[in-house]
Amino acid sequence: MLRAIDHAGIAVTDLEAAVAFYRDVLGMALVHRETLPEQGVRAALLDVGESHVELLEPLDADGGVARFLARRGPGLHHLAYRVDDIDAVLASLSAAGTRLIDAAPRAGIRGSRVAFLHPSATAGVLTELVAPADHH
Amino acid sequence: MLRAIDHAGIAVTDLEAAVAFYRDVLGMALVHRETLPEQGVRAALLDVGESHVELLEPLDADGGVARFLARRGPGLHHLAYRVDDIDAVLASLSAAGTRLIDAAPRAGIRGSRVAFLHPSATAGVLTELVAPADHH
Repeated sequence: MLRAIDHAGIAVTDLEAAVAFYRDVLGMALVHRETLPEQGVRAALLDVGESHVELLEPLDADGGVARFLARRGPGLHHLAYRVDDIDAVLASLSAAGTRLIDAAPRAGIRGSRVAFLHPSATAGVLTELVAPADHH
Repeated sequence: MLRAIDHAGIAVTDLEAAVAFYRDVLGMALVHRETLPEQGVRAALLDVGESHVELLEPLDADGGVARFLARRGPGLHHLAYRVDDIDAVLASLSAAGTRLIDAAPRAGIRGSRVAFLHPSATAGVLTELVAPADHH
């Protein structure tokens, strides 16, 4: 059902400082940058094996990542799994009684379709499903 | 330098309930269980792609995972990267001025050698390096 860890999402206060560490010190390739206004973040994706690290800096004080930073400080924000058929996975989880944030997929980074599971279902982990765009 | 996300470590209050969800609902294969007294946890590893989810339940109220749970509740605890030559990676990070928790590797789960980086170096993420045992 889940093919891989697609990415670990990390909330940061200074995107450029975080990119510099993950790219230059840990040696991950920086492969994508995107501003996601509807999620209130600027994001950077770095490659590690078949997965990514997704660094997220808030655009303002209003979004979920901004609230996370205000409450907990920088750190691990969510964990995302790669799936092929996101509609089928959501239907299966829903049938199993899993509490979802998104009953249907919405637009994610780099042309993907994504949906979030509620942390109450997953031992406290904000969990994302990602169906990548065909060319990724 | 880093080959893959080796695992995401998740702090839980009820290991069997968490195993049941990740195995039976998310469909991950349960591949290993181990009690790690020196880290104060019972652990379960589940496969997802080339990575694992590592579920961690405290043995008592004293260890780092127990303190994390008391402060934050269940959720993402650390992120681990797989490396080949952990001594070389630690030497490289140390030369770059990266703050380490473990200057030298110590014994980890399933016969691995592991070392932790300090969260202050990594945008708040408790970060582990894992050199798997030869047979994993």
